[in-house]
Amino acid sequence: MIFLTRRERFSAAHRMYRKDWSDSRNYEVFGKCSNPEWHGHNYTLYITVKGEIDSERGFLINLSDLKEIINDAVISKLDHRNINTEVDFMKDKIATTENLAVAIWDVLQPLIEERGVLLHRVRIEETENNSVDYYG
Amino acid sequence: MIFLTRRERFSAAHRMYRKDWSDSRNYEVFGKCSNPEWHGHNYTLYITVKGEIDSERGFLINLSDLKEIINDAVISKLDHRNINTEVDFMKDKIATTENLAVAIWDVLQPLIEERGVLLHRVRIEETENNSVDYYG
Amino acid sequence: MIFLTRRERFSAAHRMYRKDWSDSRNYEVFGKCSNPEWHGHNYTLYITVKGEIDSERGFLINLSDLKEIINDAVISKLDHRNINTEVDFMKDKIATTENLAVAIWDVLQPLIEERGVLLHRVRIEETENNSVDYYG
Amino acid sequence: MIFLTRRERFSAAHRMYRKDWSDSRNYEVFGKCSNPEWHGHNYTLYITVKGEIDSERGFLINLSDLKEIINDAVISKLDHRNINTEVDFMKDKIATTENLAVAIWDVLQPLIEERGVLLHRVRIEETENNSVDYYG
Amino acid sequence: MIFLTRRERFSAAHRMYRKDWSDSRNYEVFGKCSNPEWHGHNYTLYITVKGEIDSERGFLINLSDLKEIINDAVISKLDHRNINTEVDFMKDKIATTENLAVAIWDVLQPLIEERGVLLHRVRIEETENNSVDYYG
Amino acid sequence: MIFLTRRERFSAAHRMYRKDWSDSRNYEVFGKCSNPEWHGHNYTLYITVKGEIDSERGFLINLSDLKEIINDAVISKLDHRNINTEVDFMKDKIATTENLAVAIWDVLQPLIEERGVLLHRVRIEETENNSVDYYG
Repeated sequence: MIFLTRRERFSAAHRMYRKDWSDSRNYEVFGKCSNPEWHGHNYTLYITVKGEIDSERGFLINLSDLKEIINDAVISKLDHRNINTEVDFMKDKIATTENLAVAIWDVLQPLIEERGVLLHRVRIEETENNSVDYYG
Repeated sequence: MIFLTRRERFSAAHRMYRKDWSDSRNYEVFGKCSNPEWHGHNYTLYITVKGEIDSERGFLINLSDLKEIINDAVISKLDHRNINTEVDFMKDKIATTENLAVAIWDVLQPLIEERGVLLHRVRIEETENNSVDYYG
Repeated sequence: MIFLTRRERFSAAHRMYRKDWSDSRNYEVFGKCSNPEWHGHNYTLYITVKGEIDSERGFLINLSDLKEIINDAVISKLDHRNINTEVDFMKDKIATTENLAVAIWDVLQPLIEERGVLLHRVRIEETENNSVDYYG
Repeated sequence: MIFLTRRERFSAAHRMYRKDWSDSRNYEVFGKCSNPEWHGHNYTLYITVKGEIDSERGFLINLSDLKEIINDAVISKLDHRNINTEVDFMKDKIATTENLAVAIWDVLQPLIEERGVLLHRVRIEETENNSVDYYG
Repeated sequence: MIFLTRRERFSAAHRMYRKDWSDSRNYEVFGKCSNPEWHGHNYTLYITVKGEIDSERGFLINLSDLKEIINDAVISKLDHRNINTEVDFMKDKIATTENLAVAIWDVLQPLIEERGVLLHRVRIEETENNSVDYYG
Repeated sequence: MIFLTRRERFSAAHRMYRKDWSDSRNYEVFGKCSNPEWHGHNYTLYITVKGEIDSERGFLINLSDLKEIINDAVISKLDHRNINTEVDFMKDKIATTENLAVAIWDVLQPLIEERGVLLHRVRIEETENNSVDYYG
């Protein structure tokens, strides 16, 4: 079994908060990340897929195909967008990196597994100091 | 003459647009960066100061002092903020990286020169691919 | 289950050697890392914790809390210190990166697990070429 | 059990193609990577070994020994070479990163296990966006 | 005056040698970089342009335009190519990074200056350890 | 005129202090950097040289020669050493990055200019946040 990782990037605005909480309650739980005027990040996304090497072609999956799947289903929805208000797969979810990683897994898993490989990991780096990994 | 550079980081939301233009005119000029729902970045700021080495202490300026000046006057105003709506020194300016670099120069120059060194350069990296340098 | 990683950094001096060996024996085993006049590194520490996403707040653990635990228990003891002579949890241990990773695990595990999440990994990068991972 | 990772680098030329396919068939499957005039990369190789810490010396394995093994058996064969035409362990294989990772595993495993530690992972980064991991 | 830098990347094969020298003479001068079977790199290109901020739009030049110029005139000619045999602007030149930087300057300068800004610097990083800057 | 930069690295211990000051006076001026038990860094050194491209060979200077000069005269003296007690060219100087940059300039300039090129800049990064540039 071999593991292949593709890195993609997107820049987005977000705010961590619950609509059913007051601004002060949100600030108490989420701190400056709850700023009602938004803030944003350059997110780095790593998608790892796994499977057997295709002996005819010598690779796991065509990287152009993997790149296209990730860009069509995820990056084009997130890049230069507001994660809270504009991204269908984050609707009614708190816009944390943890929830985002799970949502991206749910979007990508069927699309990737159609190609005969398995999704292994979704990794998101929100800043150079903070990151989240999800293995399903 | 010696040059000393301090790196600091902030995460902020912004939108490139002019209030006196329609959304479609803004989109035509600024593309996806004009998204009315905002987007954001992890900005990296490099402040370079220059002067003679202080022969008694062997350094140009105390790095803790430089760090404090940058954080008080710039980072605390920008980090986890909306550059368009919440930052006094960007009021009524188009929120481009170019204008931000000039505005940060104008804020920092008097504070740094009070300490007996010269401000040499403000450098802002908006993404790993795009950056701006301003030398006054 | 979700995995969250926090990066922190510290700069420290150390020397790899055994007190019960001669300088030449230490040099034979540890090479230039045994220099009796010390040397040092910018260490990068990655702490990964794991658990279920808190459905009310949408995250695994408050990052400010995690950052505070790591800084109070580890970084404040190591940063700008001598690992051999000044760090209580390294007393009487050879100051290798392997031993340091295990010692940091032992310090952090009870503090992190008090918060209802599990410690998953301690990763230390000593230089851009050398790193150690410990999973308990 | 502790995990130790050594990073090494090499720059090489390669081409992804099968000799028994036409240029157009190769282009269809491998795209621009099949260019008959070659292209190349700065490859980054991460070798992770694992085992128990040697209680007498406080480390898993002497890093100089590990570095020497990797350089003698792998880097000296690949650096400033053509992966397709000059590297014995890639002979008659399609020069993909997946095949290269498996071939490096096969070369290194016996040499590393002679030293009393286990090979855990071969990781190759071909570009900042693409990487492969192999665990045997 | 403001300075704007765009980073682009390309992967290419090359060989440093003179046709009018023997292989041994080439090896003596260019070392392993003269390998007749080629080698290659992930090159990073930084293009810096300078001028006055456009007061109506708040930027120096539209980044999409700059990106398009660089990609059309330079990256599309170099990426996944052989610098010695396939790149028109390197024909009959020794394929050093120094000569490449000057050739890219000559290609880009007229195209960039048509847009009303000045080309300031061409920077090429060949590896993480080696880079070249050219200012015209 | 073309500019060529070589990156090299060294890991060293140091302490910022004056022998003729008390520990408390040193702490007041240099903070935690004055720790009498030392601390250390992974320093990154960038040496930039400049001159005309040699038309016969297509480069400014042979990189192997430049690398050898830097390693013999600077890196071998600093790597895995104590900057305060073991480095001849830092004797009787306060071990700041500013003084180190000037001292490295003084060591390298005659050696580099013997080769027919000019030394342009010494750049030292002490941490990812702090760096110094010296142009003579």
